Formats: sequence, structure tokens, C-alpha cells
Amino acid sequence: MTVSARAFWLLRGRLGRVSALGRSAVSLLAAPGTAGRAFRGFRSSGLRHDAIIISGTEMAKQIQKEIQGGVESWISLGNGRPHLSIILVGDNPASHTYVRKKIKAAAAVDHVDERTVCNGIAPEKDVDGFHIINIGRLCLDQHSLIPATASAVWEIIKRTGIETFGKNVVVAGRSKNAGMPIAMLLHTDGEHERPGGDATVTIAHRYTPKEQLKIHTLLADVIVVAAGIPKLITSDMVKEGAAVIDVGINYVHDPMTGKTKLVGDVDFEAVKKKASFITPVPGGVGPMTVAMLLKNTLLAAKKIIY
Amino acid sequence: MTVSARAFWLLRGRLGRVSALGRSAVSLLAAPGTAGRAFRGFRSSGLRHDAIIISGTEMAKQIQKEIQGGVESWISLGNGRPHLSIILVGDNPASHTYVRKKIKAAAAVDHVDERTVCNGIAPEKDVDGFHIINIGRLCLDQHSLIPATASAVWEIIKRTGIETFGKNVVVAGRSKNAGMPIAMLLHTDGEHERPGGDATVTIAHRYTPKEQLKIHTLLADVIVVAAGIPKLITSDMVKEGAAVIDVGINYVHDPMTGKTKLVGDVDFEAVKKKASFITPVPGGVGPMTVAMLLKNTLLAAKKIIY
Repeated sequence: MTVSARAFWLLRGRLGRVSALGRSAVSLLAAPGTAGRAFRGFRSSGLRHDAIIISGTEMAKQIQKEIQGGVESWISLGNGRPHLSIILVGDNPASHTYVRKKIKAAAAVDHVDERTVCNGIAPEKDVDGFHIINIGRLCLDQHSLIPATASAVWEIIKRTGIETFGKNVVVAGRSKNAGMPIAMLLHTDGEHERPGGDATVTIAHRYTPKEQLKIHTLLADVIVVAAGIPKLITSDMVKEGAAVIDVGINYVHDPMTGKTKLVGDVDFEAVKKKASFITPVPGGVGPMTVAMLLKNTLLAAKKIIY
Repeated sequence: MTVSARAFWLLRGRLGRVSALGRSAVSLLAAPGTAGRAFRGFRSSGLRHDAIIISGTEMAKQIQKEIQGGVESWISLGNGRPHLSIILVGDNPASHTYVRKKIKAAAAVDHVDERTVCNGIAPEKDVDGFHIINIGRLCLDQHSLIPATASAVWEIIKRTGIETFGKNVVVAGRSKNAGMPIAMLLHTDGEHERPGGDATVTIAHRYTPKEQLKIHTLLADVIVVAAGIPKLITSDMVKEGAAVIDVGINYVHDPMTGKTKLVGDVDFEAVKKKASFITPVPGGVGPMTVAMLLKNTLLAAKKIIY
């Protein structure tokens, strides 16, 4: 497993200082989609064709509430508090940002303990879902700890009510922690142990010629882009009414302000005029990824998967 | 792991009664593509546009020769003979056929011992590549025992010289022992530990609407079909000059003869007039799958992967 410039997560046994709420933790956490239309976001303007902007920040808050409820009922049954430890390998600024966000999110419910690098993580504690056993289970449609970014994209799609069954999806990017598991979740059988999206999925990547990418994205009902290339997806590449999920995290120089700013892989302002749904960067997939990491932490602490 | 109606393979320690040939086994087996143009098959008629029919039977013979050489040099170094044992679960006629073929192929080089059902196989002996560790490694682009059907498709493409880099590939079928691993091999990075095909891959399946499948296949430079549906791919769905790899194994009633005959998923007679390369059924992917199973057996015996 490649470990450079990536954050690993170790469970230690506690997450959340909470009081009893009953036994609803499992069902709350096991039922993506229950929040339903609550997360359909808001229209960004009065223009009829503008996309609904999905607020990952708001959706993440809801999920954190659900997790808090789950922690409370877990503790109330006499169990130890879930505890998240972080091992940061390498010196990638994006990793630091991600870790800071995770700490901030976890700090809202409990203390977080930072750790030194380790070479291996037990699969049942691998809340990032990068362990070979978790990847194997994911790819065989079995329950597993799913990489948080992939899980975030799945939750955004399902909670927003975006259809995937029999639809065309393009996943741009084939990384093992984002593009690949996202493609796996979306193309697989909705009736399997870990239900998939039953979509026809096209996996594109750095060697997909740009004009071919456009042909594929124009066919797509859902575009998920996790390529790390600002403005990779422009409005001429998007079918009217498509849903666009932007996983990109790019720091670019803003000539207007002279400062560095965070952007995704989508030309947001132009694409939102054509899409039906769109996630912003920041405030879209990012906060949802942190929320799904916490959800994995609770799943691991409760030994639901293993 | 689903075990019904499928053949499992256990290694016992021997395969091939052979004499010394030197230390060339690893390089021989590790170099798909070295046979190069030798496997470009033959033109089926004088028509200019007819596809080159790839003979899986002939390619498999060559691979078995390579394996035999590998076994010889392995034994000459004082190692035990690779040995393949079969556990057949369920009573699917297709499984029996597959097992009979495997036995026949292995019998050409050594004795084969049949076994009773078992619940688990050590990943290093899992020459079918169905173990979660092998699937996990495959999906992370690491060396692994690759499911023989996927490996067969890969070898056919590479040894025939069919290009995949930056090309559009449709994989019709998402099964865990064929479609999924084929899609994984073809879309992944050519520079990783286990090199992939760097193709843009579309995974289609039972819930892909037929008219959408046609849109995708008409874009495809390579079509791999592993759906189990006779004549799923018709000539109007194939781009002029595409390569068509038929993984289907279907037994259909032939009204002309009143007998049952074996066909693939492709309307072979019509599609061969449009494709550049095509594999027949029988005599295409089938014999190559058996050859790749034997290759896995040797890889496992030599402990090259684990």
C-alpha cells in the first residue's frame, strides 16, 4: 500500500461525549437516503435553468447529528467511546488540510489523538477503507469500510435523490481512494449485500483523449469528477439536466486577489447553468468526506462490519 | 464467497512431467505479448472487411508450451511438481464442461486429483483468483492470481496486438469473475505494479438499456462481452474495425439440426464482417481460460505472487 502524503486513521476507542438516546444508532447509520428531500439544497438564483446547489456542508451537519445519536446510544449500552487517531504520512499540504478538517469535525464530539506513522492497520480499524481486505470486500459487493470520499459521493447522490439505476455515469479519475471505489459503488448490483447504483459507468482518466471525454460526458446523466484538474469539466461537456459531483481539490492562484483559492475540477459558474444538481467546492464533497470518515469510525467501533 | 455451481482449484504440488530446460520459466510466463504477431489468426474469407478470427485454441497451445517449459525449468531446479486439484460445487453443466476441459488440458502434462468441497482456499493457492485477497490486490493494481477468464481476455488482446491505450472499451457484463476484473485490467495504469490497459472503460450490464448499450458499443474500439446472452452484440452495434472479444458460453437449441450447440454473446457471422478482430465461440476465450488457469497454477507453485 502506498502511504506517502496520505492520512491514515486508527481507532482507539472513543468518539463523542454524549448521553443516552436509545438503540437507534444502527438503523440511523444504515439508512442512507432517509433524510430524503431535506438535502436538495437551494437554487442559486432566480434563473430557471440553474442547478440546485447541493450543500455538502449542510448534509454533513445532518450526518454528524446522526452519528452523534449513534454514539449516544452506543455508549448508553455500556460500550466504550469511539476514538479516532491520525497518522499523517508525508508532507502534502492537501493532506494537512484534510487532517485539520477531520480534527475539527471530530473535536465537535470528542478529543482526537494524533499518532506517529505506522506500517499497517488492522482492516477492522481501517476507517479510511484503504486496506486490501476492505478494497476486496468493496469490489465483491460485500459490507466493508468504504473509502470516505467514495462514500461521500454515494451519500450525496442518494440523499439528494439523484437516479442512477440504468443511467449513464462518467467517473473522471481512477484513483484507488476516489475514482475506482466510486465507479465500483455506482455500477454494481442494487440487490447485492452492499447495494450498488446499477448505473452504466464509464471510467475516464488522464489518458482519455479530451474529445473522447466530452463525448462520454455528453451522454452522462451523472458526472463525478475526481481528477485534480481545475475546469476539466466545462459547460459544453455537460448534458442539460445532468447532475455534477465535484470531488476535485485544487489550490489555484487568483489573479484578481493575488491570493490562493480552493477550486474543484468543474467550471462551476458556467456548469451550474446547465446541470440539474451540482456540488460546490468548497462546501460540497469535502465536508461530506469528513462526515463519512466519522461514520466509518462509529461503524468500526461498533464492529458492525467485522 | 459464492460457491454454488462453480469449480474451485486447489494446488497440491505437481503439474507436468518434464525434463530440464534451464531457468527461463519466469521470463517466459511474465512476458505476455512476446508471441506477438504469431497469434494474429487467419482471415476467414477473401472478403476485404472480414475480421481476423483469433484462434484461442492455437494461442492456448502456445501458452501451454510456455507453461510446460516453465514447469521443466522449475523441476530442474529441484522443486516439486505443480499439482492441480479440483473441487466442483453444485451441478451446473457449464461448470462440468469447464472442469472436463481443465482436466483434459492438465492431463496433457500430469495427473489431476479431484477433491471434495471445501469452504476456504488459501489465497496463495487460489488459482481461480476468487479469494478476497486476490481480488483486493487486483483492484489495487498489485500482482495477484488473476481470475483466468479476465487473464485470458487480457492475453488475447495483448498477444494479438490490439491497442487499448487511450481507446474506448465496452465491457458488457459485471460478474466478479469476468466482467469486473476485465474492466479493472483494461482501465488501470500501464505503469503500475501490475500493468493495466489505460483504456477508457464503460461497464454495461443487465440494467443498461439496449439503446444505450448500442450508443456505447458504437463508440468502442474494443468490445468485450461477458453477459451470457446469445446475439447480444449484433453488427449494427459494432464500429467498423473494432475488436470483439466474446466471453459468452451459451448452449442453445439448433432448429436446423435439432441438437444443442455452443454459442457466444456475439452474432459472429454478421459481426465478423465489420470487426477487425473477433474471437469465435467455441475456440476463442474458452481454451485460453484453461491455459491461464494452468499458468496461475505454475505461478502459485513457484510462489511468484505470494
